[in-house]
Amino acid sequence: MKTITFIFAIFLVLGGIGSNVLRGQTTMNTAGYRNLLPVPASVNFQTGRLAVGADFSAAATGYKDARLLSGIERASRRTELRTGLEFKRTPADAATATLIVECQNAGKAIPALDEDEAYSLDVTDKQARLKANTVVGALRGLETFLQLIEGDQTGYFIPAVSIQDKPRFAWRGLLIDSCRHFQPVEVLKRELDGMAAVKLNVLHWHLTEDQGFRVEVHKYPKLHQMGSDGLYYTQDQIREVVAYATERGIRVVPEFDMPGHATSWLVGYPELGSAPGPYEIVRHWGIFDAALDPTRDEVYKFIDGFLGEMAALFPDAYMHIGGDESNGKHWKQNPKIQAFMKEKNIKDTEALQSYFTAKVQTIVAKHKKRMIGWDEIYSPEMPKNIVIHSWRGAESLAKAATNGYAGILSSGYYLDHMRPAAFHYAVDPIPANSTLTEQQKELILGGEACMWSEYVSPETIDSRIWPRLGAIAERLWSPGTITDVDDMYRRTTALGIQLEVFGLNNETTTDRLMRNLAGSTDINSLKTLVDLVEPLQGYNRGKAHPSTQMTPLTRLVDAAKPESATGRSFAKAVDEFLSDAPNFRAHREDMTAKLNRWRDVNDALTPMFARSPVLHEAEPLAKDLSQISQAGLDAISQLASGNPAKPEWRDATLAMLAEAVKHDQAAVGLSIIPSVKQLVIAAAELDQLKTSTPAEWSKRVKTLATEKPKNGRR
Amino acid sequence: MKTITFIFAIFLVLGGIGSNVLRGQTTMNTAGYRNLLPVPASVNFQTGRLAVGADFSAAATGYKDARLLSGIERASRRTELRTGLEFKRTPADAATATLIVECQNAGKAIPALDEDEAYSLDVTDKQARLKANTVVGALRGLETFLQLIEGDQTGYFIPAVSIQDKPRFAWRGLLIDSCRHFQPVEVLKRELDGMAAVKLNVLHWHLTEDQGFRVEVHKYPKLHQMGSDGLYYTQDQIREVVAYATERGIRVVPEFDMPGHATSWLVGYPELGSAPGPYEIVRHWGIFDAALDPTRDEVYKFIDGFLGEMAALFPDAYMHIGGDESNGKHWKQNPKIQAFMKEKNIKDTEALQSYFTAKVQTIVAKHKKRMIGWDEIYSPEMPKNIVIHSWRGAESLAKAATNGYAGILSSGYYLDHMRPAAFHYAVDPIPANSTLTEQQKELILGGEACMWSEYVSPETIDSRIWPRLGAIAERLWSPGTITDVDDMYRRTTALGIQLEVFGLNNETTTDRLMRNLAGSTDINSLKTLVDLVEPLQGYNRGKAHPSTQMTPLTRLVDAAKPESATGRSFAKAVDEFLSDAPNFRAHREDMTAKLNRWRDVNDALTPMFARSPVLHEAEPLAKDLSQISQAGLDAISQLASGNPAKPEWRDATLAMLAEAVKHDQAAVGLSIIPSVKQLVIAAAELDQLKTSTPAEWSKRVKTLATEKPKNGRR
Repeated sequence: MKTITFIFAIFLVLGGIGSNVLRGQTTMNTAGYRNLLPVPASVNFQTGRLAVGADFSAAATGYKDARLLSGIERASRRTELRTGLEFKRTPADAATATLIVECQNAGKAIPALDEDEAYSLDVTDKQARLKANTVVGALRGLETFLQLIEGDQTGYFIPAVSIQDKPRFAWRGLLIDSCRHFQPVEVLKRELDGMAAVKLNVLHWHLTEDQGFRVEVHKYPKLHQMGSDGLYYTQDQIREVVAYATERGIRVVPEFDMPGHATSWLVGYPELGSAPGPYEIVRHWGIFDAALDPTRDEVYKFIDGFLGEMAALFPDAYMHIGGDESNGKHWKQNPKIQAFMKEKNIKDTEALQSYFTAKVQTIVAKHKKRMIGWDEIYSPEMPKNIVIHSWRGAESLAKAATNGYAGILSSGYYLDHMRPAAFHYAVDPIPANSTLTEQQKELILGGEACMWSEYVSPETIDSRIWPRLGAIAERLWSPGTITDVDDMYRRTTALGIQLEVFGLNNETTTDRLMRNLAGSTDINSLKTLVDLVEPLQGYNRGKAHPSTQMTPLTRLVDAAKPESATGRSFAKAVDEFLSDAPNFRAHREDMTAKLNRWRDVNDALTPMFARSPVLHEAEPLAKDLSQISQAGLDAISQLASGNPAKPEWRDATLAMLAEAVKHDQAAVGLSIIPSVKQLVIAAAELDQLKTSTPAEWSKRVKTLATEKPKNGRR
Repeated sequence: MKTITFIFAIFLVLGGIGSNVLRGQTTMNTAGYRNLLPVPASVNFQTGRLAVGADFSAAATGYKDARLLSGIERASRRTELRTGLEFKRTPADAATATLIVECQNAGKAIPALDEDEAYSLDVTDKQARLKANTVVGALRGLETFLQLIEGDQTGYFIPAVSIQDKPRFAWRGLLIDSCRHFQPVEVLKRELDGMAAVKLNVLHWHLTEDQGFRVEVHKYPKLHQMGSDGLYYTQDQIREVVAYATERGIRVVPEFDMPGHATSWLVGYPELGSAPGPYEIVRHWGIFDAALDPTRDEVYKFIDGFLGEMAALFPDAYMHIGGDESNGKHWKQNPKIQAFMKEKNIKDTEALQSYFTAKVQTIVAKHKKRMIGWDEIYSPEMPKNIVIHSWRGAESLAKAATNGYAGILSSGYYLDHMRPAAFHYAVDPIPANSTLTEQQKELILGGEACMWSEYVSPETIDSRIWPRLGAIAERLWSPGTITDVDDMYRRTTALGIQLEVFGLNNETTTDRLMRNLAGSTDINSLKTLVDLVEPLQGYNRGKAHPSTQMTPLTRLVDAAKPESATGRSFAKAVDEFLSDAPNFRAHREDMTAKLNRWRDVNDALTPMFARSPVLHEAEPLAKDLSQISQAGLDAISQLASGNPAKPEWRDATLAMLAEAVKHDQAAVGLSIIPSVKQLVIAAAELDQLKTSTPAEWSKRVKTLATEKPKNGRR
């Protein structure tokens, strides 16, 4: 990619930024990365600290414009809100300012893929100096500055440090699906604030779907009037969101999904469809048959008119045309389309979609945009300047790169799949074992996390995106060598709190929904249960809770966080406890106290279950938790006693655990089941400890415990 | 008031509404008022219940329009969000619907003071039937319906009941000050949802102040352009808020405060002022000298142009012109104004303000609005159709009523004064001892709670308004005989949870701010402390924390709820414990456990204090809490032992408590100090129990404990 090379070129010219950045290496002192997320390309903490007190001031000493100054003002305000200090706001100069921002030039007028986002930050006990070529680079550096603020008995301060930073990938995005469930402008604004905090730079806005057409279109008003239930963004609102993103150095790439996923277009304009219609907005989830008719000139004329209006509304250089999951059924059923295919010698519906995509590409290009679309748009006949967006995986992306196409990765970054942050963190757009050449690697532009919204409402979306998105943001910004999972969890947890200042509800949603479920402010026992459960992963929620666009998203599974921090820390304690064989002292007291509390939750919740029918689905879970906790307690006692547990007890207990795994009527599972299984197997395997080292033994126990049960769903 | 009489007349004509309503009496069965807030004029619970399941449906069988139908849809949706059920949404008819809404006619096109808000609701085990003359009456009844939903093991249901309801006062408002701190549109919308839930019907929108001019004015654009820091409502946004309120049967009365509280007007138009200027937006709090010049025709021409534009923008029949706290200083200092007064024989600045007010009244009347203003606008020369808004008190209001002027009460309803809900609940616009005639009483239209915003941000405002506003709403709607404070607290607590569905943050703000203070999700110990403190009352916060418009409102006092439920329940336990003399068994175990926990909070918080400088102000509080809790524990032991405490211990302990009261550097106080004082005095007075009954003794102890300390501030 020429653009990428160009960034590197500018980078080399800049004297102020250390050469270790260019080797992609990161250095750090023993203090760790503190709360830096993503970890910068190069960090060197030093001795000394810069005090942050009421006399804090910031000065822009180089290029300055409204965007830079409001970025500095936002950073100051966030510091005030965090520290409770009120800054004097007297104009500061380079000599006296606490923070100097030295910017070279404006950078791109509209945030662009080839924006220079690099910056350096040097903090001494006298002053902090932030240098960047562009305003966007300075904005990225301001976020780093904010993450460095700490406090102790003497007050707030920033540790002395030298940072040189720039992103590993140029395209670092979040897809927000405003279609399955509409997300109001204020939701987008707060997500943009969060994205800026972790240095993401693309909002991929999924605006059209079978379930809703969400953008006002002047030329074809029946699109939003008939396809949205009145839930659409006016063009003024679109401009407002784009301006808000631009202020934060974030591109907005709109997606207009075609030819499939387009039922909502056809409600107002059935004549564009491949079947006669009439069409209705789809209320449930899945892949549907409705598709634009790729054989008719009027359809392309319509697309031209529509995309032309959108090209003027969205300033970004890219336009996403979707292209995914078009099943071809209506094409096969339509004799005219079949005749067209015969006439043009188009062999199958995939080839027909390629024909369609090629025509749409010329329209997109006519409106001065570069086309991006999902894997399905790829065919060797397409011009080389399109971008492949992969939901299929890094291999699909590598194949496209081998053929000279740029791409971005989303497979492995689906936030709606409710996988742990560690899972996403391990997914790399360029895996370590990649066989791509350096030149081909440059075609891998980055990636996008996807927040598909079948199961998220404006009330729950923050808790689904955050803080897990922090792990993906780090994967896309930081050197690929930054892979410490525990430290990632420590820092994403800190991020979760920092984001609250933007009004993000990632931390508050759980309690709010629990009070609604309980009909009470007394939610301690319910919280104990909810803290231990995790939503079913992948597409299993839909199997447990068949649902539609109207289904209230206020049940236990909506209150539950995507992953259980309590379960994770218990798993770690169990590992360390078993590694402490044959003494079994590590964490024993704490684990026992916890298991006792968990065992008793069922009794504590009985009155709440009695008055809250919506919680009835949680009764089996609470009963399971009671049994499982007792099993854990028994196993710990057994291990402490030094006598192996009996095989009958082991078998019965493992059968109970296997049964508990199947209890998914609440669309959640208990996170501690694998850990308790490990304890139970350990208790039964105690004899083996005589013939192996503790390390071998505990490893063997873990292997036995993680063997998948037959027919297991999770 | 003719309007009021008119409501009663319509009411009598309606056959379906029972005559007990007209006597203002309320009946109830032993089940209490459940979660009804405000309590209806008449409630009769019966045996039986109406199931609310997935087959729930609602049908409007009488008059219907878009406002009614969307009100019904909102009610259905809220029921879904609460129960987790998804309703089928198939059209229902009168025979099969779970809820029938039978409305007679539209009512007022624009919500008005003489709107008929009465309704009746009859629920049997077959069906619920809501009857109302007007759509607004039906909306009020829908809120009652929602509050009646309960659950048990068999599912959700509504108890069989017969309700006839109508408000005691026609004007039931909330003032929101958008000036001292700007409150975005989404804040207003969620407060309007909350207001509708407790049947309030007036949003008094305080739009201009020394600290900000918050409304877009086309004719005089420098008002909002130079007087607002860019924080103003566009006229489109004003219309959006008015429409949102209208949908919910809520009037919007705008206030344009003059001739004082008007500095922000003069930033752009200094020529309107009484001093030469220039003027700047005021950043601190208090009463300022800037005032419009009442002697010049151009000023009235400006007011005419401005109010004319506003009269077209705001549909309500009333316009509030403020009029409060104009100190007359600039008038006294201006020789031309002094000469004018001499010439016109105007004796003092109060008389000059009356001259001004009379001229403004003719302008308001010219634009077909009725004028309302604060106490200061009253003078016997004013026409009788103005309304006096009293911040001075019920006496001021009664005086005006005696002279034939209508009025509303806000004295005693200032939410920013951080007084307990019980304080506001006891304030009645027509006190029981009122000497007004029945006709004069009709001039008392109602009241308004005031949310002045010196110390509230968009992030904290919900926790300052709610749930205390529920107590005021009940005072203004329900019969004056509804005065059970404990039951009010029980029901406002339930209200607090119900409001969360609107996105109100009354319950979440505390935890969110505590995580920010702690820099951690582990806030259990901090929560124990914060749950025990209360913000200083009245104007004392400003003394403890001198502050400006830019001061971050993210400190401990902002996290603290306006009143401590924990402190309140402890006070109750202490009363019952002492009444259980000489056994002293009631609550002893529970109180001891609590005091032990409170005593240990200081140690638990030490590491948090060390890393959070913003919490340093709380260190003395935590230390006090430790000492105070130990004193409580000692007193309880002493009482249990049967031996009176020594006078030296009593004196030293009371001195310690008196000192603790003065520790207000965090702008909060510890709520349990009076209760512990009671325990300490009881322990010292134990001997007196020999010569008096336990009831007399515990009463005497309480009296001794509530004697005010000298120089005490709270």
